[in-house]
Amino acid sequence: MKALVLFSGGIDSTTCLASAIEQHGKDNVIALSLSYGQKHDKELQSARKLAKYYNVRHMEIDVAKIFENADCSLLATSDKEIPKETYAEQLKTTQGRPVSTYVPFRNGLFLSVSASVALANDCSVIYYGIHSDDSAGNAYPDCSREFNEAMNSAIFLGSGGQLRIVAPFVGMTKADVVKKGMELGVPYEMTWSCYEGNEKPCGLCGTCRDRIKAFATNGITDPLMKAEE
Amino acid sequence: MKALVLFSGGIDSTTCLASAIEQHGKDNVIALSLSYGQKHDKELQSARKLAKYYNVRHMEIDVAKIFENADCSLLATSDKEIPKETYAEQLKTTQGRPVSTYVPFRNGLFLSVSASVALANDCSVIYYGIHSDDSAGNAYPDCSREFNEAMNSAIFLGSGGQLRIVAPFVGMTKADVVKKGMELGVPYEMTWSCYEGNEKPCGLCGTCRDRIKAFATNGITDPLMKAEE
Repeated sequence: MKALVLFSGGIDSTTCLASAIEQHGKDNVIALSLSYGQKHDKELQSARKLAKYYNVRHMEIDVAKIFENADCSLLATSDKEIPKETYAEQLKTTQGRPVSTYVPFRNGLFLSVSASVALANDCSVIYYGIHSDDSAGNAYPDCSREFNEAMNSAIFLGSGGQLRIVAPFVGMTKADVVKKGMELGVPYEMTWSCYEGNEKPCGLCGTCRDRIKAFATNGITDPLMKAEE
Repeated sequence: MKALVLFSGGIDSTTCLASAIEQHGKDNVIALSLSYGQKHDKELQSARKLAKYYNVRHMEIDVAKIFENADCSLLATSDKEIPKETYAEQLKTTQGRPVSTYVPFRNGLFLSVSASVALANDCSVIYYGIHSDDSAGNAYPDCSREFNEAMNSAIFLGSGGQLRIVAPFVGMTKADVVKKGMELGVPYEMTWSCYEGNEKPCGLCGTCRDRIKAFATNGITDPLMKAEE
């Protein structure tokens, strides 16, 4: 059975890739990375290095045109600053609406692209690194449990039962994901999560904060945040 | 309220476009056409002419790369012949699996792209010309009622309740759609449905057969099938 992994080069999807390889063997795994017009390509660079490290087939597709008019602070087409507050603080000002780093229906689009690519390449499962911390208190509606269930159904039904989503971390926290990844020997120093594209992670954006905390809960320092020797 | 219409240039989506314009006014309607690597661009040419005829904003996005390895007879990358039998006949040989003109998870992908584009362009609804004949007896699993319901939920939930699908023909047959379109004055002679890209429709592929029948049920000849004067 062949598996397609939706693979950004961040810590969740890299742990997901390691899990898929453990389960199916590297020759039966395809890693798919989608670029969507981000302000930088640091994640994609990490994804490329990690796919090489794991020696799996790596596909890249550019879907930036779909988002070209979106008013989202992650995109190169936007002048908005990427917020430096926690998601809880950001949600106070958005009044329940998605945060400015919400890319319109991104995860729905990414899962649909994954479904088409998986079917076109004889994969029977899509590995998706979603976990229980991912919706960040409704900051990202396309990460909620209800959304995931609806997409799972749509992909199973719309493929005529040929394809399903495997979300190995769905009941786990991000800290649990890191714990699992440590057991699998994931080279986290090669991953990238920060929304900014500087040489070192900013340590302040929502995704940096979540990541640092997940490592800290496991009693370790995020390898990207370590002081230079 | 702004509406995005998923618009192929065929008879269903053109009737859907006319309905959306009737409801929202042409200045609040965006028509979105997706090319996916078909063997010809006759539908897209029709879509362009019709968008001009209706004087609405027309967006085109090419998603062909997503399907480049798909084994589907509609695609330019495939050597497969497009079947000339009815869907019922085709399903006898596929043993319940989708027919060879099934493009992997195409409608799921198209609706997801529509959702992202709609949100990025301040639309609150997606018009989608699905009707009750559309699944063609499971020939197309991504046209089934259950699939549509799952996608509707995914889009509503994944957008944080900002966006929903409107499917004005969901309880109607294709013949009913044509009847509605005749009332709205849709210029059906400008549409294109045939899977082949010849000067005239083949009259034999699944979509030609369905279309001819829908006009015949209304007591008229498909305007594209009329003998030359």
